[in-house]
Amino acid sequence: MDTRFTGVIPPVVTPFKDGEIDFESVDKVVDFLIDNGMNGLFVGGSSGEVAYLTDAQRDAVAERVIKHTAGRVPVLVGVIETTSARVIEQAKRAEALGADAIVATCPFYAINDMAEIEDHFRAIAAATSLPLFAYDVPVRLNGTKLAAEMLVKLGTEGVVTGIKDSSGDDVAFRRLVQLNDKAGHPLVLLTGHECVVDGMLLGGGDGVVPGYGNVEPRAYADMWAAAQAKDWDEVRRIQDGINEGFEIVFVPQGRSGDARGIGAFKTAMEAQGTIATNEMAYPVKALEGETKEGVVAIARSRGLV
Amino acid sequence: MDTRFTGVIPPVVTPFKDGEIDFESVDKVVDFLIDNGMNGLFVGGSSGEVAYLTDAQRDAVAERVIKHTAGRVPVLVGVIETTSARVIEQAKRAEALGADAIVATCPFYAINDMAEIEDHFRAIAAATSLPLFAYDVPVRLNGTKLAAEMLVKLGTEGVVTGIKDSSGDDVAFRRLVQLNDKAGHPLVLLTGHECVVDGMLLGGGDGVVPGYGNVEPRAYADMWAAAQAKDWDEVRRIQDGINEGFEIVFVPQGRSGDARGIGAFKTAMEAQGTIATNEMAYPVKALEGETKEGVVAIARSRGLV
Amino acid sequence: MDTRFTGVIPPVVTPFKDGEIDFESVDKVVDFLIDNGMNGLFVGGSSGEVAYLTDAQRDAVAERVIKHTAGRVPVLVGVIETTSARVIEQAKRAEALGADAIVATCPFYAINDMAEIEDHFRAIAAATSLPLFAYDVPVRLNGTKLAAEMLVKLGTEGVVTGIKDSSGDDVAFRRLVQLNDKAGHPLVLLTGHECVVDGMLLGGGDGVVPGYGNVEPRAYADMWAAAQAKDWDEVRRIQDGINEGFEIVFVPQGRSGDARGIGAFKTAMEAQGTIATNEMAYPVKALEGETKEGVVAIARSRGLV
Amino acid sequence: MDTRFTGVIPPVVTPFKDGEIDFESVDKVVDFLIDNGMNGLFVGGSSGEVAYLTDAQRDAVAERVIKHTAGRVPVLVGVIETTSARVIEQAKRAEALGADAIVATCPFYAINDMAEIEDHFRAIAAATSLPLFAYDVPVRLNGTKLAAEMLVKLGTEGVVTGIKDSSGDDVAFRRLVQLNDKAGHPLVLLTGHECVVDGMLLGGGDGVVPGYGNVEPRAYADMWAAAQAKDWDEVRRIQDGINEGFEIVFVPQGRSGDARGIGAFKTAMEAQGTIATNEMAYPVKALEGETKEGVVAIARSRGLV
Repeated sequence: MDTRFTGVIPPVVTPFKDGEIDFESVDKVVDFLIDNGMNGLFVGGSSGEVAYLTDAQRDAVAERVIKHTAGRVPVLVGVIETTSARVIEQAKRAEALGADAIVATCPFYAINDMAEIEDHFRAIAAATSLPLFAYDVPVRLNGTKLAAEMLVKLGTEGVVTGIKDSSGDDVAFRRLVQLNDKAGHPLVLLTGHECVVDGMLLGGGDGVVPGYGNVEPRAYADMWAAAQAKDWDEVRRIQDGINEGFEIVFVPQGRSGDARGIGAFKTAMEAQGTIATNEMAYPVKALEGETKEGVVAIARSRGLV
Repeated sequence: MDTRFTGVIPPVVTPFKDGEIDFESVDKVVDFLIDNGMNGLFVGGSSGEVAYLTDAQRDAVAERVIKHTAGRVPVLVGVIETTSARVIEQAKRAEALGADAIVATCPFYAINDMAEIEDHFRAIAAATSLPLFAYDVPVRLNGTKLAAEMLVKLGTEGVVTGIKDSSGDDVAFRRLVQLNDKAGHPLVLLTGHECVVDGMLLGGGDGVVPGYGNVEPRAYADMWAAAQAKDWDEVRRIQDGINEGFEIVFVPQGRSGDARGIGAFKTAMEAQGTIATNEMAYPVKALEGETKEGVVAIARSRGLV
Repeated sequence: MDTRFTGVIPPVVTPFKDGEIDFESVDKVVDFLIDNGMNGLFVGGSSGEVAYLTDAQRDAVAERVIKHTAGRVPVLVGVIETTSARVIEQAKRAEALGADAIVATCPFYAINDMAEIEDHFRAIAAATSLPLFAYDVPVRLNGTKLAAEMLVKLGTEGVVTGIKDSSGDDVAFRRLVQLNDKAGHPLVLLTGHECVVDGMLLGGGDGVVPGYGNVEPRAYADMWAAAQAKDWDEVRRIQDGINEGFEIVFVPQGRSGDARGIGAFKTAMEAQGTIATNEMAYPVKALEGETKEGVVAIARSRGLV
Repeated sequence: MDTRFTGVIPPVVTPFKDGEIDFESVDKVVDFLIDNGMNGLFVGGSSGEVAYLTDAQRDAVAERVIKHTAGRVPVLVGVIETTSARVIEQAKRAEALGADAIVATCPFYAINDMAEIEDHFRAIAAATSLPLFAYDVPVRLNGTKLAAEMLVKLGTEGVVTGIKDSSGDDVAFRRLVQLNDKAGHPLVLLTGHECVVDGMLLGGGDGVVPGYGNVEPRAYADMWAAAQAKDWDEVRRIQDGINEGFEIVFVPQGRSGDARGIGAFKTAMEAQGTIATNEMAYPVKALEGETKEGVVAIARSRGLV
């Protein structure tokens, strides 16, 4: 297992201001996250609104984060594209920018089976010298769930370094953990289920990629430390607290999935002063009015504002 | 919280022989489960093939289990029907047979919204004096997921006593646990995710309804005891072992969901001598040949055979 | 092909009054439908709220419709239950009541594969002397879609007499028509897609089971006659008109699927005087207020009120 | 309605040879389609394996098709990207290459609601002077279905020129046709359901985008002509024939969706001599062996080989 990529690695949000990427806020987010104990940064993930960014914007954000991080922690870069050939183009650019690892999903828009998906990851790995993380996020990808056996096989062969599991299927994650252990633990297994990290760490997870980590990084860092110390009651206590803050994503009503989740994170971060505005990428409108107030009220009750 | 219904409450399989219910095996299953430390028995659940049984068969099984249990542990009876009026008929029969509690799903075949589902549970509760458990199993019910807020409201008002959560959504279960705690813990929250019980108990679950508990009840009883003692590393160790046995459900290839899951349980139980045959209800054919051997081999490796 | 079951066979709604079935209105609906040219009646379908009725209510409605129809047209009775054994009980009762045919879905709540579903239909057919229609309605049945090859095989062997296709998948229906033709047209193929009947009849459908036929039976009868005369432009013209009326189902906002569809039909029928009230089965609340007015306004614009 | 875009407009497949785009075959496909009466060509659609092509490849194919078409028919270019900003980049390149229209989907990977999707189309239209077609293909896009009311509104405002409906939902298409008619028919409504075009044209569709049109363009041209002449029985007869050929997509077993559909088209085209090989874009493997023979046998029975 590549231990550089264990622990808490939040998917960094992309701050906007007047419709443009706000690089000053990017720097502040990076410092905020590293200063609060994050073990790595994941740029270009769903929470980073990667799907909304042009290639130039993706590159600019990755470059800025990598530069400002300056080696303090590893930076993973999402290379989110529909199929192998297109992912490889993204991967090569990420490598040139100095990424420490890349994160790719299975193909989307395309309709492939598991054998084709396996070949997809092989082609990406062959095209770059960077560690490759497979990103399992069926809710965005037509329901496609990566097969545990395939992932462990790719891990054993050195094709894939780790998994970011945002599948919502903890039973499958648990099984992946055990298959991985039996194979000698080649894969770094990171859960994206930020509200059940306690159980996932108890069960053998190697870390977490929490979107809400943008808001409360310190709590995740503390949870990770408690887990390392096997103080599970403390782990659970911290998770409970995090989940109270995570309720911000349930405040927005009648809005899209991205507006609710990322919108709530950004709104709390704006209130915390980490980013200048809670703007979202077009065409998603920022939270405002009572919704915004509701989010901030929860953040305040957690002592974050 | 009604503490009678915490701990390990397996959904009892329904043994068959030559196409008929094998009541002798029913008795043996009941004794096996109680002798191995189960805190209750759930008759008429999905693992009990309730959907395949006529009303007369449902009654006969419930009656036999209740009689043979003879008060040693509480018996919960599934009242699985499409809508309120039909569930209520089942509930009244279960009550007459001496059930200690009933377990009902949201409506199915019907297409209802959450307000109608809430009224559905209210009507059922009003029609019986028994404690009512809401059974959340979207995979069988067109994807309908019970809303946590509604469940806690019904718990607070005394309409619903507890939840059997087989939704596969542990993030939602975790949230339900916390909402329930805030409301004073009116609901007994039982997870049906038999492979991540360690995490669910650490996170505050009140128990588990494990189909695989038919095969390895003692392991679940031990896990529950370790959880009560807050020995979380031991809880996880036991869960790991259970999951190795649970691999039996992945042995059958190219078979239906019910054949794979319940079929594997019954095949292991037949090998253990708990039931006479691994027959399934029509039209599901029993596992046989290499598939059967594969299941038994795993059971043997766990020391169960 | 059994020609008794071609043409327009609406799924008869179940009228309620003060929470009880309103048998007087049942008679009026039957007469209204037969007087307006319906070729048969389907009792106990989704539009008949079959999932909400107890067995006693199902029997009472079927008995009343059969008696009042008095052989003027054939009466098909829905035998909607989760699995074979339970369907067979319903089928035997329907047979005893004098049904001309039965209509059964694939199993639900149970999780079966296509081989098991085929056996399911075989068992039902073997248990009754009545013609058996297979009812394909994935939207209520966890997405399960009946395979065309299987249906044609069952038709060729005389197991199944016809299909009621409410799958929403017209490409699949078209393919079924052609496979059926190649096999000598054993099956009566009825579409439940009431808004594209013109295309389905042009493509070779043998009839339609339109829920909205409860509201505008005459239009469907006229369309069927025009189709028999191969006056396709007239068929389309009539369909266009029907669809303007069918817009009533889009009036209710924020209500459940059953409330929107069946609720709108009943509301129009109440305004027409065919039934006494637009009550729905518990727990579905009748449309009222502006929603009701909106439905009636459309019905009025069609000259139905 | 922009009448340039009515009739039969097939999504042009992208031929490969030894892993590279085979431009010689591209020219042959273009001539084959135009010579057989196609009213337009759609480059960069799902059947063109657009998701598998790099931007450079997309441009090269579009450029070649546009050049070789040389104005004989209009060329529509798919601008398939995850969100507005990325689509706009594609659209500008398509415009520079001389496309006659662009075809865009709703956002994907992103999780948006219908209001955001509406803004998405507005932004694309504002960024180009080309006619914009909205491409509705839920099966590739997480199930998202474009709302008919929104589309007609965008049509009325001149934002969107037409729709390519590959939703599989003919009831919704029929409703869209009628809403469009009521609004003065601003939108060109093209169905992608190649097997029920008869019914869709009878019901008022303005044309079809048939993947199978790559194989049998002449039949679609004939069907379109018969529909213009309102010879509906002939339309149906031709559709029946087409569907017998379309059975090639059901020959491949155990392959991915893209391998089955596009793979079968390419295999028939190879046998016809229109393209040099039936290669697919990486990682999809070409059909071969018995599967290939099965496809060719059907094509032969249709007199295509």
